[in-house]
Amino acid sequence: MTTLRMRTVHAVLRRVMEHHIAFNKHLGVRVESFDPQAPKLGFDMRPELVGNPARQILHGGVISAVLDVAGGFAIMLSIASDAEITAAKFPKLGTIDLRVDYLRPGRGRHFTATARIVRKGSRIAVTHMELHNDQGELIATGGAAYAVG
Amino acid sequence: MTTLRMRTVHAVLRRVMEHHIAFNKHLGVRVESFDPQAPKLGFDMRPELVGNPARQILHGGVISAVLDVAGGFAIMLSIASDAEITAAKFPKLGTIDLRVDYLRPGRGRHFTATARIVRKGSRIAVTHMELHNDQGELIATGGAAYAVG
Amino acid sequence: MTTLRMRTVHAVLRRVMEHHIAFNKHLGVRVESFDPQAPKLGFDMRPELVGNPARQILHGGVISAVLDVAGGFAIMLSIASDAEITAAKFPKLGTIDLRVDYLRPGRGRHFTATARIVRKGSRIAVTHMELHNDQGELIATGGAAYAVG
Amino acid sequence: MTTLRMRTVHAVLRRVMEHHIAFNKHLGVRVESFDPQAPKLGFDMRPELVGNPARQILHGGVISAVLDVAGGFAIMLSIASDAEITAAKFPKLGTIDLRVDYLRPGRGRHFTATARIVRKGSRIAVTHMELHNDQGELIATGGAAYAVG
Repeated sequence: MTTLRMRTVHAVLRRVMEHHIAFNKHLGVRVESFDPQAPKLGFDMRPELVGNPARQILHGGVISAVLDVAGGFAIMLSIASDAEITAAKFPKLGTIDLRVDYLRPGRGRHFTATARIVRKGSRIAVTHMELHNDQGELIATGGAAYAVG
Repeated sequence: MTTLRMRTVHAVLRRVMEHHIAFNKHLGVRVESFDPQAPKLGFDMRPELVGNPARQILHGGVISAVLDVAGGFAIMLSIASDAEITAAKFPKLGTIDLRVDYLRPGRGRHFTATARIVRKGSRIAVTHMELHNDQGELIATGGAAYAVG
Repeated sequence: MTTLRMRTVHAVLRRVMEHHIAFNKHLGVRVESFDPQAPKLGFDMRPELVGNPARQILHGGVISAVLDVAGGFAIMLSIASDAEITAAKFPKLGTIDLRVDYLRPGRGRHFTATARIVRKGSRIAVTHMELHNDQGELIATGGAAYAVG
Repeated sequence: MTTLRMRTVHAVLRRVMEHHIAFNKHLGVRVESFDPQAPKLGFDMRPELVGNPARQILHGGVISAVLDVAGGFAIMLSIASDAEITAAKFPKLGTIDLRVDYLRPGRGRHFTATARIVRKGSRIAVTHMELHNDQGELIATGGAAYAVG
């Protein structure tokens, strides 16, 4: 695997995650790490993302959306890192199911989502995800199963 | 329970669901039925809600967000219908956890979310939710547990 | 599809569900309906299945086990009904994930589990399940995703 | 907190987990660690626990049962360690919901379940659980929400 190839793959992945997916763009999601062991997405608090005006915390739907995206990102990154894949041939990913534990109010100015692949088959992948705020507090955890390919 | 009181409660609930919660407003969520047995929220497809530009289908995060909101709405409506509650004293609701089964691609021009309360305790409520498109196809189902009060 | 073939398939399925799977046998699971639209498994309360000696209610693990089994049974029955399958060629089924909502204490003398297929693909199937007691009370609901084939 | 008190509490917890709960006894569950940071339950493979006779692997229902039990054990241990609780006054615990990711076939001679508390409120607690076999392979993960008190 050449560094050049990976740089191209990363550029494509960033473009897909940050620009092509319209809803991600609204969420303000940015790729913060391409490390296949610890991929990271981040986003800033913005008035449009608030779920409770009195408490100024993230809408639960923002949290579930970002966790789902983080799981999918981890799988795409892992596939790209493993195989002789070119940017043009990314496998299709479909979320089978998702679940989220809301552990603490989504308070903060910046949030970071990470994902870990716990099952990686040729057809099914499962990830566990976490969302932290900029104080390092664990806001939510998630799990999702994806159909691959 | 007077009709007048319920009309006021509905007006307040509509304002909260459609205007006060900023992220709901972005999703374009509208209350379509206040029937406590079959409450309904609806929203239109819009370019910002797309998760896959090639296929023009809803982002999974839109689906999970709307299902979570539908479950909470059903509980608030039920509490308002049961008790001598006034608009000023709505109980606090916190989503404990949420899960979503993504059954079909989120294709359509208009979508409707419904919720059914399957457990209603003084402290914990559980709802099951469904999202249909305007062809009547079941796009996704969900379940959520909420801490009440 | 001949009635004769289906009778053989049902006999095989019953043997698998009630005898070959050792843990099912311990649970006392019996096939109560082979209707593909509403397959049913039943079992009786027994001292070994109790989770709370003071309250004499089912162990949560009994409930999750039976719901998982009911989902798998519904899929096998559906495949057998659709296709020119013979008893010897049942597809392999693997549970990807399972979730259970415990709605009421598992009190009763007899319990019935049903399952409904909500997604049926060539590789992935999803079912929703319910457990009722002999008073018709809904004790628990579940959802599971299965890898097929 | 005196060592004497904790020793008594541990003895009571062990008796409850291993003897009073009939279904645990059938599963053969044993307390292997009372460390509140890393409580552990273990059990041996036995013919009655098999879900697939051809492959000699654990029944999915055994896995979900043990993970649920492990989560509840972690919460009871944590409450006992924190508070001036006596063996007679354990709080009541009810599982609200449970989900399990089945990651690898349940192959092995001995299995160990651990749980971590990720949310601990006065009324609701959430745990994440893991099941490993005696080769250190991660067989399954779980998450559960409990009503406390």
